[in-house]
Amino acid sequence: MTDIRVLDRIDADLPASLERLFAFLRIPSISTDPAYKPACAEAADWLVKELSGIGFDASARPTEGHPMVVAHWTKAGPDKPHVLFYAHYDVQPVDPISLWETPPFEPRVARQPDGSERIVARGSADDKGQLMTFVEACRAMVAETGGLPINVTILSEGEEESGSPSLVPFLLANAKELSLDVALVCDTNMWDRDTPAITTMLRGLVGEEVTITGANQDLHSGMFGGAALNPIHVLARVLAGLHDDSGRVTLPGFYDGVPEIPAEIAANWASLGFDGDAFLGAVGLSAPAGEVDRTVLEKIWSRPTAEVNGIDGGYTGDGFKTVLPAKARAKVSFRLVGDQDPDKIRASFRQFVTERLPKGAAVSFHPHGGSPALRLAFDSPALNKGRAALEEEWGRPAAVVGSGGSIPVVGHFKTLLGMDSLMVGFGLADDRIHSPNEKYEMTSFHKGIRSWARVLDALAG
Amino acid sequence: MTDIRVLDRIDADLPASLERLFAFLRIPSISTDPAYKPACAEAADWLVKELSGIGFDASARPTEGHPMVVAHWTKAGPDKPHVLFYAHYDVQPVDPISLWETPPFEPRVARQPDGSERIVARGSADDKGQLMTFVEACRAMVAETGGLPINVTILSEGEEESGSPSLVPFLLANAKELSLDVALVCDTNMWDRDTPAITTMLRGLVGEEVTITGANQDLHSGMFGGAALNPIHVLARVLAGLHDDSGRVTLPGFYDGVPEIPAEIAANWASLGFDGDAFLGAVGLSAPAGEVDRTVLEKIWSRPTAEVNGIDGGYTGDGFKTVLPAKARAKVSFRLVGDQDPDKIRASFRQFVTERLPKGAAVSFHPHGGSPALRLAFDSPALNKGRAALEEEWGRPAAVVGSGGSIPVVGHFKTLLGMDSLMVGFGLADDRIHSPNEKYEMTSFHKGIRSWARVLDALAG
Repeated sequence: MTDIRVLDRIDADLPASLERLFAFLRIPSISTDPAYKPACAEAADWLVKELSGIGFDASARPTEGHPMVVAHWTKAGPDKPHVLFYAHYDVQPVDPISLWETPPFEPRVARQPDGSERIVARGSADDKGQLMTFVEACRAMVAETGGLPINVTILSEGEEESGSPSLVPFLLANAKELSLDVALVCDTNMWDRDTPAITTMLRGLVGEEVTITGANQDLHSGMFGGAALNPIHVLARVLAGLHDDSGRVTLPGFYDGVPEIPAEIAANWASLGFDGDAFLGAVGLSAPAGEVDRTVLEKIWSRPTAEVNGIDGGYTGDGFKTVLPAKARAKVSFRLVGDQDPDKIRASFRQFVTERLPKGAAVSFHPHGGSPALRLAFDSPALNKGRAALEEEWGRPAAVVGSGGSIPVVGHFKTLLGMDSLMVGFGLADDRIHSPNEKYEMTSFHKGIRSWARVLDALAG
Repeated sequence: MTDIRVLDRIDADLPASLERLFAFLRIPSISTDPAYKPACAEAADWLVKELSGIGFDASARPTEGHPMVVAHWTKAGPDKPHVLFYAHYDVQPVDPISLWETPPFEPRVARQPDGSERIVARGSADDKGQLMTFVEACRAMVAETGGLPINVTILSEGEEESGSPSLVPFLLANAKELSLDVALVCDTNMWDRDTPAITTMLRGLVGEEVTITGANQDLHSGMFGGAALNPIHVLARVLAGLHDDSGRVTLPGFYDGVPEIPAEIAANWASLGFDGDAFLGAVGLSAPAGEVDRTVLEKIWSRPTAEVNGIDGGYTGDGFKTVLPAKARAKVSFRLVGDQDPDKIRASFRQFVTERLPKGAAVSFHPHGGSPALRLAFDSPALNKGRAALEEEWGRPAAVVGSGGSIPVVGHFKTLLGMDSLMVGFGLADDRIHSPNEKYEMTSFHKGIRSWARVLDALAG
């Protein structure tokens, strides 16, 4: 249990915490635009100063791009766990600026009709607000108790919104320093405004580009049509064969290593009241697709998929050209779960295509990345301590959720540093990250700080 | 039989005929480029002057675009047939000019290593050379015999290479004047350098654009993949279902009205020594596609087809984006033969697609033209007279061929004027029409003139 005086101090200091967040938000640290390079450096320096002020051993470490902020607190002693907290201090560009109701780097608190308050600024939710929930929790604990209950290293990069080119080299160059007991990654959302969430599953991804070639040139369909191989036809047949009538992927071995979720997690999901019809209806879909015997939530969190993300071949401009194209191409991705092996999936797909080529057709493949699914074991101590801490703060069980997308840094931590991640964040789906009028709920900020204090205490136990 | 003196005169006058053709070729009548509008008018006027000189009642008739040249010879008398000869006096642009070995509007005769000669210039084969074979035949007949054996109207347009916008209005406005016994259309090729050909079948065409829509916006495949309908998958399934494993088109009713060719024509085709493997091998194809029980020649001349000419959906740029697209689109064309009905084929396709839509998918269609197949009856007197005349000149039977593509003017003559076309031309497949260094064989020009003299005589009998 967390010292009530720490929580009281967090409550009392909220105005000051907000002032500090505002100061951070005023720095336009847009990493992708070279014009804002000085602002990125300023944001890194600001963070170093804040963390040093709390008592961290903090520095901004140079990279080929924007600096990495690394800050250590090791005074909890060698018998205590050591966690790595990850966040980023850079932000997205602000275009289209005309859609912002107020300037993106002039943060404000906007009171809503329902009485709630939100912090509006670029970076408020992604990721400065989330980052500062952790920093302010550390500040309050140090101020009230003289220290942190566990050892903490904070890693904050300045290139998350521009592809993180320096991240992997930095992790590799500093693997010993950064390979800790567990990572805390805050770039995620709550289930809803009142229900915290821990993301424990991220689907992996295999990307493949497949090109079918027929003739060595585009042909006139009048002259050759009916006799010459049409690579679009071949591609359509291959892609149509990827799923059976029940929506299952037909690649041999595709479901090897795909687990069923434990009953306890299934019960947690059922309790969330997720409305699959509404989820799909919001984007104009009147019916679900995919595996007929799975719920929408299962499909997007815990089931593997095969999706064609792009296809082109022949004439695609206005009007009509009766061409028989020489090539047709598709970009196909597989979302992976559990222990599915990206290399095996890729090989199975390539064999599947190759076996279906008619005589006269050729195929080439181009890989576009492959990463396994990531999951924190459901019986992981860190997960269960985190769940307990969040339930204490929010008064209801945390949702243990999956995510259909990938968070690259979590994969790097696993692959390069051998470290699992506990993904806890307080964003909401309507925070408009990457869009005009980005916001972060005041409750997310305030109770997020309190949550981290509880989680740090829980991890010490 | 044609008067030997006419043929001798054609031989003797060949240098003069060539000079006239060169004068015509020097006029850069590029119809699609407004800068060459005066040149198009000059070409029309040149042609009027030549035809008037022979004795035709010739004039250049204004249109919204370039003028139509119309020339009548009706002195054969009302008991003789009256044919419409069609050709065009405009030419293609010359880009890329750097690939021309000599300037495109400075015609020359190039002697080849095998001793043959060719006329090199833009328009030499398409269509001024072909047009002048007919004009020079008329000139020689009039000079030697005092007249033509049948009545002849020559129609020469100046917009064939720029979409013929004025053709249909002109035909409709002058239908009575131009609806004659049969049309002679010279915009076609010989079978090979030594074998003349009459084209009697042109496949029709139905073009359809089909768009499948799922969600009302592009979706992130991480967030929605597996649960949201992917319109590329739906489209691939539909297109893959258009053909069965034997290569036949599966649309209900598709083969209604598709005739088998007569035994005599099948024998003519078999005698041509056509090498389907070589035909496909020349464009890099090691095996034929399409109906398994048909020869390549049947497939491209006398069998109907369904071909996807273009497909696009989702992300098609460089790299990879894990998008689930809102839409996927294909351009599909059907080549028609015999009595296949374009409207019924279009309706059958639309029903086929609609019946295969899963719940949540929508479809829209956009038509891109529809025209029935055209054929000259195999027992047509004009066809058999033409065959006999060509055999006399070339010393071997004329190939009676089909063409996979369409020649719009032939359709207009049939649809608007109720007139069949006898398609006889002396081009060769390697004439490089529309390309740099376009050429026309001297034998095509010389024996083409002689052929027309024989055909005109034959049609009089």
